[in-house]
This record gives sequence, structure tokens and C-alpha cells, in this order.
Amino acid sequence: MKLATIAANSRDGALVVVSRDGQRFLPAVEVVATLQSALDNWQTASEALGKLADKLDAGEGESTASVSFLAPLPRAWQWLDGSAFDSHGALMEKVFGIDPVPLDNPLMYQGLSNQFYSATDDVPFLYEEDCIDFEGEFGVIVDDTPMGVTAQQALSHMKLIVQINDWSLRKLAPVEMRTGFGWVQAKPPCSAAPFAVTPDELGDAWRDGRVHLNLVVDFNGQRFGAANGEAMSVGFHELVAHAAATRDLCAGTIIGSGTVSNEHYREIGSSCIAERRGIEMLDLGEPKTDFMKFGDRVRMEAQSISGETLFGAIDQKVVKRELPK
Amino acid sequence: MKLATIAANSRDGALVVVSRDGQRFLPAVEVVATLQSALDNWQTASEALGKLADKLDAGEGESTASVSFLAPLPRAWQWLDGSAFDSHGALMEKVFGIDPVPLDNPLMYQGLSNQFYSATDDVPFLYEEDCIDFEGEFGVIVDDTPMGVTAQQALSHMKLIVQINDWSLRKLAPVEMRTGFGWVQAKPPCSAAPFAVTPDELGDAWRDGRVHLNLVVDFNGQRFGAANGEAMSVGFHELVAHAAATRDLCAGTIIGSGTVSNEHYREIGSSCIAERRGIEMLDLGEPKTDFMKFGDRVRMEAQSISGETLFGAIDQKVVKRELPK
Repeated sequence: MKLATIAANSRDGALVVVSRDGQRFLPAVEVVATLQSALDNWQTASEALGKLADKLDAGEGESTASVSFLAPLPRAWQWLDGSAFDSHGALMEKVFGIDPVPLDNPLMYQGLSNQFYSATDDVPFLYEEDCIDFEGEFGVIVDDTPMGVTAQQALSHMKLIVQINDWSLRKLAPVEMRTGFGWVQAKPPCSAAPFAVTPDELGDAWRDGRVHLNLVVDFNGQRFGAANGEAMSVGFHELVAHAAATRDLCAGTIIGSGTVSNEHYREIGSSCIAERRGIEMLDLGEPKTDFMKFGDRVRMEAQSISGETLFGAIDQKVVKRELPK
Repeated sequence: MKLATIAANSRDGALVVVSRDGQRFLPAVEVVATLQSALDNWQTASEALGKLADKLDAGEGESTASVSFLAPLPRAWQWLDGSAFDSHGALMEKVFGIDPVPLDNPLMYQGLSNQFYSATDDVPFLYEEDCIDFEGEFGVIVDDTPMGVTAQQALSHMKLIVQINDWSLRKLAPVEMRTGFGWVQAKPPCSAAPFAVTPDELGDAWRDGRVHLNLVVDFNGQRFGAANGEAMSVGFHELVAHAAATRDLCAGTIIGSGTVSNEHYREIGSSCIAERRGIEMLDLGEPKTDFMKFGDRVRMEAQSISGETLFGAIDQKVVKRELPK
């Protein structure tokens, strides 16, 4: 089942169910108004939404061509982002000059959750000089998940899978890391691909709590990377358990994988500019690829095994925001 | 004006206006349903709420004795906590063995915001061994605040002042700091005192973007500290500007001061156990004060100049949470 959110009178938009091919949709308003509301009562809501999905399978529904989708959760109560691809982490440590820390636990930070840009929104920044970068990743959305849940127990709490662009300001990141307090300024709001999908939609591509799909990233129309989500050193269920170690996770909490990255990044490419620059520093002695300029575009879409769209595409431009008067 | 939230059918509770002495209240439901909603439309809402406050001043209203208050925002879209008391920061660096980082910017981390415990909730933790600690602090709540706002501009966006207990797990904190990703497990949900007050309620005690009041902290009935909020090395307006440097702050964003701490902490006491333990390490060679055990209580209340309660008191107990089955 594919769920999405379209604009409505509320900041949370209106929930719709989308056909497998992403071409048609049915409003869910008579069943449940918003995706947050569905997650708050997942058992009941998902059954009712499944009946709408059946109708879509039978050919019903309106065309999505004239609809503009918001992020599945235009604002979420919580966003926690992991860094589960070790090949990326190891490279970033070199780039930022940070000593590797031996860890027993997954890496994770608390991110801003009150706003997720849609897949097609222009994304505003004040200064190019902050080194604007994208980070292509996958994420899961959980229902109410109790404090102290095990990774095994967490498997059944992951209700939806999403695709995210975690916007990052690379000039500010190392400064904030050195404080030990983590990122605030270096991590503005993320963007999300339009469709949040139930794990069964992925078929065999969802196993071991990982998304076994290539995330195809194009930067200004040029192929930039197609790393596979299977390479997570810990699965999403382990990230959820880490997140829930000392807190209850509310329904609608989104947990991210961190930048999708594979060890053979020289061949397959990267999901963020910082990683490519890191490779260039190792191979060429200095970075060659610039960070994003105003007007630059990034496109991200996971390649499903059958060739159909799964999460839809993120395809957007960075733009200049003027200072407030 | 004093605002508070009482239990209602929604997770966001119902907004009420409270008399200056905290003894009477009037429901605000006919004006605006929730505090978040008031902050979303502050100009209009605050005028209407002010009329209810006038009625309370004239003696109207029901007794608060039989009412149990939730946190002013039982869940918030964003919580960013500073560390603006340098005497605390310097001591913590010694305690955690962290090298001091020369900084041009305030220290701040992104915290969990989907849940704020009420002032009287029992607060659940899984393990005493995680080193349970309180942190008494002040905070401000802003209305919609644009990216890139100056500290001067930020002054007019601070609509409410609150008093917060930022629960902390000290065993986990240094491990997460060393990753550079900041705190997740070390920072479970905070608690909030019942009343969110407009800056004018503080009179002269609100100036330079600081709360010039003692925060009286009692641990298991013993006076623990009474540090004054004036000692912030940067004011709340500067913290708001820091938070908004690369993002729009949504209405209802709460910005914390960090643990209230004064340089003469040996005389005035501390607002968290970690600080007292740090002092003991310096003075006695080892920490003497234990972290909290299940059943321990902490009470926090700001002492107003006139002796009336301002934010009400936080007074609560830590309890054991069992693992989920």
C-alpha cells in the first residue's frame, strides 16, 4: 500500500491512497483524515485504507497528474537520523578530520521534524557559502513504540518506508560536531519523496530491516550515484531499538538510515557531495566537485526491482532566501 | 498573562488562562482551543486571552485546586536547548573530560519535543544505572520566526516564558558527545512547570533577554540550589537567533537556557546533580552526591520578586519502568 498527502486546509494536509504505479489515487478522508492520524490508530486505519488500495487495484481512482503532493508527513513529531552506512561514516571522519570513535551503538542524531519539504518544493538557503549538500537516504515510520523495545520487537512497529533528502550545510557541520552537542544549524529541514509505502510493497527488497534497492541520484541532470540500501551495518529495526532505549517513540516518529553509501563508491557513485569530495581528496589530493549553488537541482528515486516507481521521485532546486527585514 | 493547559480529549489538552496568584482559571476554549493554536495566531489570540485575564483580575474564575495541569505544550513541534551558563559548561567539561572548544556561537542541541511531562507526573526510567539527573532551566516559546532573524528582531518573537526540567542520563551523555552527533539516549523527555507566562508578568525580572530570578531546587526535600537566571552569557534573543540561523522556527518552538548556574555555585548551590558532583570532584577529589534513585523527588520553582508563584512548581518523582513484553 502506498500512502501520500495532498494539500488541504490543515498544515498536515489530507491523506490519499495511491495505486502501485503512482498514476491514480483515492482520497482517504472518509476513513482517516491525515497520515499522522492513521499512524495513531494503525490497526484500524490500515485495514480501511487497504480496502481503498483494493479499489485502486481494480482500476478505480483519479489521475495523480494534476495533484501536487506534500511530504507524507508535512510535519512530524520526531525525526531521528542514523548513520548506518559505514563506508560513508569512515570517509566523513577523514573529510572532517574527526578521530574515529569506537562504538558499541549505532550513530544517531535528533533532527528538526516540524517541517518536511515536499519532493518538488524549491528549497531555500541564505548562503551558498554554507556549503549546501544533499543526502539521499531511506527511512521508516513507526507506530507507538515503547521504551526499551528490542530490535526483534521493533520489526513489527515499522509501518511505512520513506525516501528522504537530508539537506546538510557542510561548512557548519564540523564546528557543531566538535561541541559534542550535535547539529542544529548544519541540519535544516529535510525533503521527502511523495509516497510512504508499507513494507510488503517492497517484496523481497525489504529484508533484514533493510531496503535492498538502489537509490539513484542525479545532480543537475548527471548521474551522481546509485548506492544500494542493503549495505547498512545495522538494520532499521536496530536503529529503532537504539532510538527507543530511553524514551517511548510516538506514532509518526521517522527514523533515517543516513546517507546511502556502498564500499565500491568509486564505481557506483555517492548519495551526497561530501562523500564524492572525500573520495576526490583521497584520490586526487583535493576536492573537485563543488557544493550546490542557487539554481542547482537534485533528483533522487529508488529503483524498484520491477522498474515501477516506489516512493516517487524527489526532484528539486535550491534557491536563495533573503534575510528578514 | 499566565497560560496553562488542562487535560481534554486531545493530546494537546485545552488552554486556560490563570490568575496572577495561580489560584483561579478561566477556560479559553471559546477563544482558542490550545496553546499551540494561540501561538499560531498570537496577535489575535493574545488580545482575546487578555480579556479573560482581565476578568480573572476582577475576581472571576474557578479554583485551580481541583485541576491537574499538563505541560503548557504537552507536545511541541520543536525543542532546542542551549547551554548559556558558562559556569556550568566549564565544570561539565571537567567532569566529562572533554577538551574545551573555543566557540563563536552559543551551544545548542536539538531535543525530543513530542512529549513534555507535566510538573507532577511520575517520570519513568528503565535503569537507575544510567545516572538519572535533573536540570532546572528557563525557556522561551516563540511565534513564527523567520530564518536569519537577528537577536534584536528575535526579542519581539519571544511570546512566553516557561520553566523546564531537562531530564538527563549522565552515564550515556559523554558517550554520545564523543560521536559528535549529540544526544539521543541521554536526553529523554523534559518536564515543564504548569504556567507559561508573558514576559510582562515578570516585570523588571525580564530584561536583556534573561530571567533575573532565582530557580529554587529541592532534592528529596533538601535545598539543593537557588541559582539566578541573569548569569546567561548570551540572552534568549541570541539563542533564538542562533536557532533560526538556517531554518524558520515554527510557532511553538521552545528554546531552553540550559541548566541555570552561577559562578558562586559553592554558596548558592546547583540546578543539577552533575554540577554538584563536579564541584565535589574539584574540592574533595571525588563525587559524593548520588544520582537519583527510583522514588527520589525533585522540586523546582522560580522565586518571583513579589513572592507570588510565576510558573508554578515542578514537583515529581522518578519511577521504574518495566521493559515491554
